[in-house]
Amino acid sequence: MGSVEVSREHLLVIFYQVFSPEVERVIREKFADSEVTLYQSKPGEPVPRELYRNATILVTFTDLPELEDSHNLKLIHTFSAGLDHLMSHPILKEGRIPIATSSGIHGPPIAEWTIMNWILAGRQHFQVYEAQKAHHWDEKTKYMQGNHDQAGKKVGILGYGSIGRQIGRVSQALGMSVYAYTASPRKTPESKKDTGYIVPGTGDPDGSVPVSWHHGTDKESIRSFLSLGLDHLVISLPLTPQTTKFLGAEEFGLLSDNSTSRFAKPYITNISRGKVLDQDALIDALNAGQLSGAALDVTDPEPLPEDHPLWDTPNVQISPHLSGLGREYLPRSLDILRLNLDRLAKGEPLINVYRGRGY
Amino acid sequence: MGSVEVSREHLLVIFYQVFSPEVERVIREKFADSEVTLYQSKPGEPVPRELYRNATILVTFTDLPELEDSHNLKLIHTFSAGLDHLMSHPILKEGRIPIATSSGIHGPPIAEWTIMNWILAGRQHFQVYEAQKAHHWDEKTKYMQGNHDQAGKKVGILGYGSIGRQIGRVSQALGMSVYAYTASPRKTPESKKDTGYIVPGTGDPDGSVPVSWHHGTDKESIRSFLSLGLDHLVISLPLTPQTTKFLGAEEFGLLSDNSTSRFAKPYITNISRGKVLDQDALIDALNAGQLSGAALDVTDPEPLPEDHPLWDTPNVQISPHLSGLGREYLPRSLDILRLNLDRLAKGEPLINVYRGRGY
Repeated sequence: MGSVEVSREHLLVIFYQVFSPEVERVIREKFADSEVTLYQSKPGEPVPRELYRNATILVTFTDLPELEDSHNLKLIHTFSAGLDHLMSHPILKEGRIPIATSSGIHGPPIAEWTIMNWILAGRQHFQVYEAQKAHHWDEKTKYMQGNHDQAGKKVGILGYGSIGRQIGRVSQALGMSVYAYTASPRKTPESKKDTGYIVPGTGDPDGSVPVSWHHGTDKESIRSFLSLGLDHLVISLPLTPQTTKFLGAEEFGLLSDNSTSRFAKPYITNISRGKVLDQDALIDALNAGQLSGAALDVTDPEPLPEDHPLWDTPNVQISPHLSGLGREYLPRSLDILRLNLDRLAKGEPLINVYRGRGY
Repeated sequence: MGSVEVSREHLLVIFYQVFSPEVERVIREKFADSEVTLYQSKPGEPVPRELYRNATILVTFTDLPELEDSHNLKLIHTFSAGLDHLMSHPILKEGRIPIATSSGIHGPPIAEWTIMNWILAGRQHFQVYEAQKAHHWDEKTKYMQGNHDQAGKKVGILGYGSIGRQIGRVSQALGMSVYAYTASPRKTPESKKDTGYIVPGTGDPDGSVPVSWHHGTDKESIRSFLSLGLDHLVISLPLTPQTTKFLGAEEFGLLSDNSTSRFAKPYITNISRGKVLDQDALIDALNAGQLSGAALDVTDPEPLPEDHPLWDTPNVQISPHLSGLGREYLPRSLDILRLNLDRLAKGEPLINVYRGRGY
């Protein structure tokens, strides 16, 4: 009887925290066909060169080898969605080794964070929470007269990538109409598709959720989008020089003035970066009641200083940049690597490969 | 030129609260073709008989006329979803006047309340809220290691009516698998349909969301359902003698023992009535860690006394029976009446007509 010779990969997994038993088990199970080395990196201490030299597959957040230590590497897999923090590295400049990102795994947690904030606001739910803490069966009238839900509302999603799509998918299920906004036009069915990794059972692979698509990088285009009568605006754009302070006083005013809802002024959700909007203008718009509230997972700066006025701005819900985090993060990222190792073995094209834009 | 003679209805709308300007405007706009009388009922004071006698259409929560004052009535519309509180009234016994309920309008708010509670629990979000109150940019590690989302999870929905269907619809969008449980079998496509009123853009009209359907009123059937490896169990059953304490220690144990998730033990959501479960057994199961948490919009008794242990049972989220409430409640209920008045004028069959089961 003969035996089949399978090329056995050597995975080097570098992580900045201790590997929990759960994560270690997931890695060993998923890559039982490979040799696996787990390495916890320490700040300021370089990863030993021989670890890089022995590896055929590198799995990392930020650590990369010198070019001369990368000869055996066939694939680099990053735990992050973007590569902006690595763009200047010689390995990326050289371009020999394909680099796959974890783009696509953030949709479920960030969409849940988004929807949760909408509902918390619409249902005045922190009052319910405080009443429970006080063992108080609260009076219902204010909820009957003040609560509102999402069915029938319009949401505009600035940046219709994997995260925007999962928000769109859930919004549609809630009975909302979804309006997509992208930098470049998406006129053809092909251009509306999501070609990256998608967590099974989520997202909008064909781009069939939006009732209409809008696009442009100029002020005119975004202003016409903000005049659609939106109840929600979700900011899911990458931060670039073009998107820095993309939204300011004038845009918040437009959004507010064009609101048609009888229930509430528009609500802003920012899951992108603090600097995509003019934060002082946002605080003003909230204080003035032009907007009914804002859910902010990102601020400018981060961490937000204790004495910053944003903390107590009316109807602001702030999280410390955690909307994408959770126990599924690493396993889902490794699902992408598993797919790519199988594709590598079969000589098929890899997914989620970096194409040179930094995100 | 001739003129068309249209029969002009006389609507009597009885409400136990003051009519807000918003509600009054909605009513007058929606029924501009009818004469409308608004009457705020006071506890212990009967509604004047002449109001009933003049009305052709009665819109009410609980007030009903004596039989002898009902001769002009062609239709009674109730703001409530069920009629259990009215079953013994002579008008219902006589059965001459069709009675339409507001069943179907509760899906959006109750589904949002449900999903919100799941996400609050999965994201440890009250800690984030408390950190914001303290102006504290919280440490992220505990969220990375402790948070989990719904994608890939299994939800069992006990009672797949309009509310269960909207929960199913949103669950599916979140990436979950939905298992439906009904009292009677739903083997044919026809029997899986929702034939009542549905808020536009919501629900599961064809019953196409569940991956499987289960049924039965006996202990054996429910226990086999609870053994499916569910992450969530939603109780959306009507309270009847058969469903009183339908779930107890043994059922919670089964649910827990069959859980396959590596993230958390099963989570219970009760949006039905407090008495459908054995509340003491639920407290025990939560204290013992058999269940990871419970969202309870209903308790036994209501209001829950200040010194009741349920308030502080670990991972319990309690609301004072408000999950269905909000500003859309009355307008949506009146949408059903509008549909029925149009059908009445055209001689078409009415929707949402009471068929004699009390819910």
